[in-house]
Amino acid sequence: MSTKPSRELETFPNPKPERDYEILLDAPEFTCLCPKTGQPDYATLHVAYVPDEKCVELKSLKLYLWSFRDEGHFHEDVTNRILDDLVAAVAPRHMTIEAEFYVRGGITTTIVATHEP
Amino acid sequence: MSTKPSRELETFPNPKPERDYEILLDAPEFTCLCPKTGQPDYATLHVAYVPDEKCVELKSLKLYLWSFRDEGHFHEDVTNRILDDLVAAVAPRHMTIEAEFYVRGGITTTIVATHEP
Amino acid sequence: MSTKPSRELETFPNPKPERDYEILLDAPEFTCLCPKTGQPDYATLHVAYVPDEKCVELKSLKLYLWSFRDEGHFHEDVTNRILDDLVAAVAPRHMTIEAEFYVRGGITTTIVATHEP
Amino acid sequence: MSTKPSRELETFPNPKPERDYEILLDAPEFTCLCPKTGQPDYATLHVAYVPDEKCVELKSLKLYLWSFRDEGHFHEDVTNRILDDLVAAVAPRHMTIEAEFYVRGGITTTIVATHEP
Amino acid sequence: MSTKPSRELETFPNPKPERDYEILLDAPEFTCLCPKTGQPDYATLHVAYVPDEKCVELKSLKLYLWSFRDEGHFHEDVTNRILDDLVAAVAPRHMTIEAEFYVRGGITTTIVATHEP
Amino acid sequence: MSTKPSRELETFPNPKPERDYEILLDAPEFTCLCPKTGQPDYATLHVAYVPDEKCVELKSLKLYLWSFRDEGHFHEDVTNRILDDLVAAVAPRHMTIEAEFYVRGGITTTIVATHEP
Amino acid sequence: MSTKPSRELETFPNPKPERDYEILLDAPEFTCLCPKTGQPDYATLHVAYVPDEKCVELKSLKLYLWSFRDEGHFHEDVTNRILDDLVAAVAPRHMTIEAEFYVRGGITTTIVATHEP
Amino acid sequence: MSTKPSRELETFPNPKPERDYEILLDAPEFTCLCPKTGQPDYATLHVAYVPDEKCVELKSLKLYLWSFRDEGHFHEDVTNRILDDLVAAVAPRHMTIEAEFYVRGGITTTIVATHEP
Amino acid sequence: MSTKPSRELETFPNPKPERDYEILLDAPEFTCLCPKTGQPDYATLHVAYVPDEKCVELKSLKLYLWSFRDEGHFHEDVTNRILDDLVAAVAPRHMTIEAEFYVRGGITTTIVATHEP
Amino acid sequence: MSTKPSRELETFPNPKPERDYEILLDAPEFTCLCPKTGQPDYATLHVAYVPDEKCVELKSLKLYLWSFRDEGHFHEDVTNRILDDLVAAVAPRHMTIEAEFYVRGGITTTIVATHEP
Repeated sequence: MSTKPSRELETFPNPKPERDYEILLDAPEFTCLCPKTGQPDYATLHVAYVPDEKCVELKSLKLYLWSFRDEGHFHEDVTNRILDDLVAAVAPRHMTIEAEFYVRGGITTTIVATHEP
Repeated sequence: MSTKPSRELETFPNPKPERDYEILLDAPEFTCLCPKTGQPDYATLHVAYVPDEKCVELKSLKLYLWSFRDEGHFHEDVTNRILDDLVAAVAPRHMTIEAEFYVRGGITTTIVATHEP
Repeated sequence: MSTKPSRELETFPNPKPERDYEILLDAPEFTCLCPKTGQPDYATLHVAYVPDEKCVELKSLKLYLWSFRDEGHFHEDVTNRILDDLVAAVAPRHMTIEAEFYVRGGITTTIVATHEP
Repeated sequence: MSTKPSRELETFPNPKPERDYEILLDAPEFTCLCPKTGQPDYATLHVAYVPDEKCVELKSLKLYLWSFRDEGHFHEDVTNRILDDLVAAVAPRHMTIEAEFYVRGGITTTIVATHEP
Repeated sequence: MSTKPSRELETFPNPKPERDYEILLDAPEFTCLCPKTGQPDYATLHVAYVPDEKCVELKSLKLYLWSFRDEGHFHEDVTNRILDDLVAAVAPRHMTIEAEFYVRGGITTTIVATHEP
Repeated sequence: MSTKPSRELETFPNPKPERDYEILLDAPEFTCLCPKTGQPDYATLHVAYVPDEKCVELKSLKLYLWSFRDEGHFHEDVTNRILDDLVAAVAPRHMTIEAEFYVRGGITTTIVATHEP
Repeated sequence: MSTKPSRELETFPNPKPERDYEILLDAPEFTCLCPKTGQPDYATLHVAYVPDEKCVELKSLKLYLWSFRDEGHFHEDVTNRILDDLVAAVAPRHMTIEAEFYVRGGITTTIVATHEP
Repeated sequence: MSTKPSRELETFPNPKPERDYEILLDAPEFTCLCPKTGQPDYATLHVAYVPDEKCVELKSLKLYLWSFRDEGHFHEDVTNRILDDLVAAVAPRHMTIEAEFYVRGGITTTIVATHEP
Repeated sequence: MSTKPSRELETFPNPKPERDYEILLDAPEFTCLCPKTGQPDYATLHVAYVPDEKCVELKSLKLYLWSFRDEGHFHEDVTNRILDDLVAAVAPRHMTIEAEFYVRGGITTTIVATHEP
Repeated sequence: MSTKPSRELETFPNPKPERDYEILLDAPEFTCLCPKTGQPDYATLHVAYVPDEKCVELKSLKLYLWSFRDEGHFHEDVTNRILDDLVAAVAPRHMTIEAEFYVRGGITTTIVATHEP
């Protein structure tokens, strides 16, 4: 597996598909750019999902999150985009993403989006 | 966009209207005046909403909150007023405002108001 | 308004009676006497209510709580008494009082009482 | 009332039996012995109940908890035993006991038992 | 009882099978190996169960957890494996395992699995 | 010993006068009155001292602190007064009092006074 | 005493000038304007001083801090200015001001200035 | 080694006597009796020492602390006693004991004693 | 002033050069690249300095920190580099930088460097 | 560089040897065996040092700490051993190691050792 930023999310087979269980991933190192000003934004992402046939491979998730580093994205947009990409990759039974963005203009923004098939 | 206090709340189109998701905004820098004594009051505002067609633009929210700085308002009144103004501006599917006012007379007051269409 | 302890709870009209919203009041300075030993007891009171036509005026609430300073009351009794007095004064749609008393005999007591009309 | 350990739990009449309200008692000073090794165990007890006709008297509860000091008891057993004794004494509308035992063998045990008539 | 790592989970009879109550076990000292790289992984395990006829004996649980020290296991797999083994041993009315693994590649993983008969 | 408020501080002989050691006392239940308005003030007192020949008896300290309940005192004055009284009673090798008063007018006041013979 | 913002700091005689002791004042409600942009800034002020002949009167300190509400000040400047004014008013034996300003541009600024005669 | 309470403190040779280094021991499970009332007292002990030729063996320390369980001791006395016993057993280059006793009569007592040869 | 990353640190005259006082700046949004692997690293920077004739302008500091976003730097090197650049720009009487880097390989690194002229 | 446990500590040249600065390393994943019972022990290590000509390479430190996983060591011994090895490898101007071991027999042990050339 490469160590370059990549939009490819790799998966591995869920070792226990006969049970509904939850996987929680906390990634405090997300950064992208503000599409208006070009200045960097920072967020902590929390992903929680119930796997069906596939689980997301951790290193590919790291490289995937890294791939946003030089792109401009609005908070609301990028959170839903990541949810869509993860849903497309692992087809979970349930998935929630919570993105806590760092304070801008004295206001802290958190976006919470959920996918239920 | 100006940098003066303003009652105009600007919006932008919800990038994912086909999904119910939540936007949380924490604004710890709210101040207005006590309508009885004229002395300043301080609060932290927490706004949580599910957008429908529109999202509130963050900088205009900052200028909107600033616009209360020199006005007299009771705690209960100003919290419901802000909820009404935000609902009028973004027509959300759901919105809650929690305003935590700083201690007065040894008692801390928090007002929680919710709009459900 | 006087600045003497008083059992009179003053109210003002709810500025938004058409909406169910919640008012939370935290008062960490409550003290009364133990009816058995005469020794002082201390508590933090948390009041949460949904106003109907009236809201409790904050300064009168402070003077009301002060009025228990020299009286003997059991924990269970005084908490229910304060709930009854507040309900009588503001006729809320819902009200909960939580009284956290300071440790006695190595045991900490908290009383939680709710009024639903 | 004596100041010796005692299995007698005293009660007093519930001052507000017409209302369902909750009494929470936190007792961080519970100790008994391990029935296998004879070594002391320690726990913090949390009792939460809705009184019916009777409330437990606080000092007698202290003496009751003290009475386990020199006795051997398994965690699961003593927690259910205390719940049974308190239920027998006050006949509550609802009661929960949570016993947090101190770490043994690198593992911390908490027992939570509930009585519903 | 030996003090060597062992897959044998010992049990003792539930002292109060006529009541549904919960036993919570927190074990912060779990370690196994990454099956890909052979490097050690670390986790804190939280087990919560409602016993039926049997309770898990604490020392045997410690030796059981120790038995994974030199084995390679994926996070998702080992959590479900421990749940399966505990369910087989104590046949609980309900059991949940939460395994908080230490950060790898900037991402913290927690697995939560539940057994309901 | 009585259970009434009292200015009499009782002492007992220091069991280890040949060693300089420190005794720390934390009393979160102090209250007196504001000498201007008559309204109650609240404070947590922290006493730290190195005993010489005498130690302060704990129950008499409780009754001593209780004795201020109905008296008017300025923050700065009462803290130095308590220090003077304790110094007079136990003649310590070193003593510090820190009095944290509850917020008034949006400002929290703490007074720290030290006696060194 | 008025209840309008005022630059007049009132004092009262130190009740214990023969002892060096410390007075700590925490004021979380300070606000002024940014002299460049006119936008509001917020800070929590911590004042610590050893009084000589005079102590600062608390209500006048509140009105003094209020007087900066509509004025433009740089962080470094206003902190030193408040220290100078307080030193001029109470002529302390020692005084430190710590001003924690709220985050701007992702950076939090705190200014700590000390006066030693 | 037995598993009965014992006043015998065992030691082992300091593995690095040529270096001054510190050993910190935190024991939250200390209990003894109040010599006046016979009621149990509880404390957390913190021992910090620089070993010379000997270190205290941990299991014997546990049994030593257990040996106070049924004895009456004043706070000040028992803390100095434990320091004396530990000093006699290990002859350290420096030792401090901090005993935090649980709240009695609304006041929390901590005793800090140091041995320097 | 531009809003592009820039190595130019702007300054403004110290408003109170006759007093030694401290300016503390906390910047939790620093990121650069690992010079070995090219993967992003993250840190929180804490700058503390006593200004002489000049203070660092906050917005230029933000743009300066941004300028490291696409560069490879070792932890020890970049921390000393930032200290050197800030010292060159503001010639402080004293300056300390503390850089807390996010965990890598299970180990968290913090670098603390101080300049004293 | 290998990914096997190894006693070889690699170093790299200090990029700023002309300045005394501090490097802090926090490693929460240390485990070794009890030399008496063979059971695993766990610790968090904190290393703080002022480099002279060399800095310790982070990955080799990780492999070095891993190398203790299957060895028996007393707390006091292994902490001094790690300090000795690190001092031998990087010859620092100053180094302190603090090892916080997990609770055993109800007692938590922390060892703090310092090297000053």
